[in-house]
Amino acid sequence: MADTFVVIGGDAAGMSAASKAKRENPELEVIVFEKGDWVSYAACGMPYYVKGDVDDLDDLVTITADEFRDERDVDLRTGAEVVDIDPDAQTVTVESDEETYEQSYDDLLVATGANAIKPPFEGLDLEGVFTIHNMDEADAIEDYVTERDLETAAIVGGGYVGIEMAEALSEHGIDVDLYEMLPHVLQPFGEPVAEIVEDHLREQGVNLHLETAVSGFDGDERVESVALEEETVPADVVIVGVGVAPNVELAEAAGIELGPTGAVATDEYGRTNYENVYAAGDCAEARHVVTGEPDHVPLALTANRAGRAIGQTITGDPTPTGEIAGTAIVKAFELGAARTGLTDEEQAEEAGFDPVSVTISAATRAHYYPESEELSVTLLADRESGRLLGGSVVGREGAKRIDTVATALHAGMTVTELQNADLAYAPPFSPVWDPVLTAAKVLSGKLE
Amino acid sequence: MADTFVVIGGDAAGMSAASKAKRENPELEVIVFEKGDWVSYAACGMPYYVKGDVDDLDDLVTITADEFRDERDVDLRTGAEVVDIDPDAQTVTVESDEETYEQSYDDLLVATGANAIKPPFEGLDLEGVFTIHNMDEADAIEDYVTERDLETAAIVGGGYVGIEMAEALSEHGIDVDLYEMLPHVLQPFGEPVAEIVEDHLREQGVNLHLETAVSGFDGDERVESVALEEETVPADVVIVGVGVAPNVELAEAAGIELGPTGAVATDEYGRTNYENVYAAGDCAEARHVVTGEPDHVPLALTANRAGRAIGQTITGDPTPTGEIAGTAIVKAFELGAARTGLTDEEQAEEAGFDPVSVTISAATRAHYYPESEELSVTLLADRESGRLLGGSVVGREGAKRIDTVATALHAGMTVTELQNADLAYAPPFSPVWDPVLTAAKVLSGKLE
Repeated sequence: MADTFVVIGGDAAGMSAASKAKRENPELEVIVFEKGDWVSYAACGMPYYVKGDVDDLDDLVTITADEFRDERDVDLRTGAEVVDIDPDAQTVTVESDEETYEQSYDDLLVATGANAIKPPFEGLDLEGVFTIHNMDEADAIEDYVTERDLETAAIVGGGYVGIEMAEALSEHGIDVDLYEMLPHVLQPFGEPVAEIVEDHLREQGVNLHLETAVSGFDGDERVESVALEEETVPADVVIVGVGVAPNVELAEAAGIELGPTGAVATDEYGRTNYENVYAAGDCAEARHVVTGEPDHVPLALTANRAGRAIGQTITGDPTPTGEIAGTAIVKAFELGAARTGLTDEEQAEEAGFDPVSVTISAATRAHYYPESEELSVTLLADRESGRLLGGSVVGREGAKRIDTVATALHAGMTVTELQNADLAYAPPFSPVWDPVLTAAKVLSGKLE
Repeated sequence: MADTFVVIGGDAAGMSAASKAKRENPELEVIVFEKGDWVSYAACGMPYYVKGDVDDLDDLVTITADEFRDERDVDLRTGAEVVDIDPDAQTVTVESDEETYEQSYDDLLVATGANAIKPPFEGLDLEGVFTIHNMDEADAIEDYVTERDLETAAIVGGGYVGIEMAEALSEHGIDVDLYEMLPHVLQPFGEPVAEIVEDHLREQGVNLHLETAVSGFDGDERVESVALEEETVPADVVIVGVGVAPNVELAEAAGIELGPTGAVATDEYGRTNYENVYAAGDCAEARHVVTGEPDHVPLALTANRAGRAIGQTITGDPTPTGEIAGTAIVKAFELGAARTGLTDEEQAEEAGFDPVSVTISAATRAHYYPESEELSVTLLADRESGRLLGGSVVGREGAKRIDTVATALHAGMTVTELQNADLAYAPPFSPVWDPVLTAAKVLSGKLE
C-alpha cells in the first residue's frame, strides 16, 4: 500500500508541499484538508483587489482547487476542518458538513497559517469593522466600500497591511485616519524608513495619528466612529490590521512543541518534535540567518519555500527549508520601502552584536539623467567583525535594491566585501556607485 | 619636504585617487596631468547628451576642474600631456602649450584610460564619421546631428555604445542601420539576451545587419554611404563603436609590464612591476572574481573604486582595489539588459568549469498586478561544485536584479544557496519567487 502524506491547510506552504511531494513520488497518496473554500491564494494581493487594481478575486488564486485535483492529482478536500491530531496513532480527525472521520497518515504537515489578531476593542462586531486576512474578508470589504458612499475610514495599525489599505481606500475617495500605538509606522523597517513614509502618507492626505491608542468603535449596528482616549472620530468603515498570530491551537493540543516566538518549533527540515510531523508557513518558526535563532516572520516566500522543501524531504530527498532574513517590501502610495536582517540597534545588541549604522540618501540614477529619484539607504553592521547585520531602503523607485543586501546577509559578508561588489552601472539605472555601495562605503569608514 | 603623488589622467580613476589621497593626507602634494580639458566626466552619459535627455555637456561633469583645485586642493594641470615616464629616476616629462618640463614623484598613478578602436576603414577621415569616446566627440556628434537635416545613420558595432547611439539617433528621427560582424549584438551578454534585444531593436525600427562586415565609407568630403561587401548603403552620419583598447603606449615605453589582456598588469593593490607605480581604470587589468584571473573590463565603477583604493594605499592604508565580476547593464530603447560573471559556456570551460545553464522567463511583479513585465533570466553554474558562475537578465523593467547575482558571485555562492536567499516580495515589486530565485530553482534541479 502506498504511503499517505496528509497536509492541514491549503494555502502557500500546504499546497507547495502537496504539489512537490506528488510530483516527486506519484505513488504517494497526498491528502490536503482545507477548512475554507479558497486554496493557494495570494493574501498579499487583497489590498489591490480592494483598491481596484485587480478586477476579480479569483485572479488572486495562483492554482485553482480543480487544477490541484485534476492536473496535480492531489486529493484536496475543501470545507474539511482537521479538529484533532493524534501523533501516536498517526491519525487526524476531520469534520466536514457531511461527516466526521479519521484519516491516518505516514507524514503530516501542519500548515494552519496565522489569524489576524483581534484586540479586545469594544464594538469589534459592528457592521463595517473588518480585519483583512482571508479572501472572504477582502470580498466583504470591497463590497462594503463600493456599494456604499463612504466618506471616512479608520485604519488601526500602521504595519504594511494598514498602509496598503490606506492607499486602497484613498483610491475610492475616502478620507483615511490611520492609528498607530507606537511612535512610528512600519516598526520592523526602522525609524529612517518610517519617517520618510510618514511624511509621504501625510502628503497623500492620510491623517496620521502616531502614539494613539484606539479603545473601541461606536455605532448603531453599523460603525460610525472610533473611540480614542479623549475624543471620538467619525469613521464609516474600520480596518483593524494590528498583526497576525500563528494558528497553533490544533498543534499545541496534540503536544506539538511551540518555540520562543509562540509559533511551532521546527528543525532545519521543518520537522517538529514528532519525527514525521512537519510544520511550515505562517504557523511555524524559521531560523534567522543573522542571529541563528528561531524567528517568526509570516511571509509568502518563506511558506512556499519551506512547503516545497518538506515535499522533497518526505519523498526521500532531505532538503533544508532555508533560513530567513526577514526581508520585506511594501508599497506606500508612490513609495517603496524594504528591509532585511536586523535594522534595530537594540535588537542587534540583544543578539550579541555591537551595532553601528548609517543612513545615506543617494540618487537612483546618474545625477544628470532625467527621472532620477532619491533613495534612502540604511545599513547596520557589527563593529568588531565588520559583518553586515541588516538594512533598509525607501524611495520612489529602487526598493528592490534590498535584495543585494539580503543576498549579502545570506553570504555572511562584511561591509567591506559588500562595498567591493561589482554592481551594475549605466546612467539610466544607477549612479556609478549604486546607493547600496555608497551606504556600505560610508559605513565602512565609520567602522575603521 | 612633503611627498609628491603624481597622477597621469584626470578622469574617474585618476581624480578618485587624487581626491582620496589629498583627503587622507592634506600634507601630500598631489599633481594631476590631464592632456585634454575635461576632467572627471561621465563618458557613459554621452549618448544621452546626443539623444537630448541631457541639456548641457557640462552636466556630465561630476566635479569641475575648479572644484578640484579650489575645494580639494589638488594641483590639477589640464592641457598637460605626460610624454615620458622614467621609473628609475622617478620623474615624468610633461608637455604643455607653453613648456616641456620634468616632474619628480614619490608615487605615480598611470590612469591613461582607453581609446576608441579605429579599424582601418577607408574613409574614416570623412566629415560625419565619428567615434564616441570623449567629450569633444560627443559635442561634435550632437552638433552634426542637430544642425543638419540627416535622414540616415550607420552605426558600426553592436556593443552597448552602438545600441545606445541607435536609440539616441532614432530619437532625432534618423533611420538607423546597425552593423555587427558577429552573429549577435551585445556579445558579452550572451545569446539569450542578444536575441531579445535584437527583436526589440527591429521593433523600434532599427535596420539590424548581423554578421555583416563594413569595409569603409564613401563620400565627397562628407560621408554619404557605407560600403559593405556587395552593396553600398546611404548614410548621412556614421558612428564607429567597435570597442576600446587600453591606452598603454606611455607605460609600455617606460618598461611597465602589460598583462595577458594587453592592459597594464597590476597586483591586488593596483601596483605595477614598479613598486611605487600604480595603474587603474580603463588602462589597467583587474582580477575577475569567478576565474581569479586578470581581466580587462573598462567600466566606470572599477575605475572609481580602484582609484579610491590607491589613494588610500599610498597614504598608508593598504586597500585592495577589489575584484570585478564584469557586471554591466545597458538600456536598449525600452529594454534593460544586464550581465555579470561568466555567461558564455565556452569561456567557462576555458576557465576550468563544467558549465550548466538555464534561461527562464518570469513576471517582474505578481501575475495579477497591473504593469507587470516579462524578465528573462539566464544563470550559469558549475556542475560538480554547484557554484554560480554568472548570469544575465533582460526585460522592460527589473534589469538591476543582476546585482543579486553579482553579489552572489562575490560571495562564491552555490546555486542552491542563491535559491534559498530571502528576497523581497510584495505584489507591486515581485512575484513570490523573484525571477532570479526561479532561475536558481530551475538550474538547481538541472544540477541534481
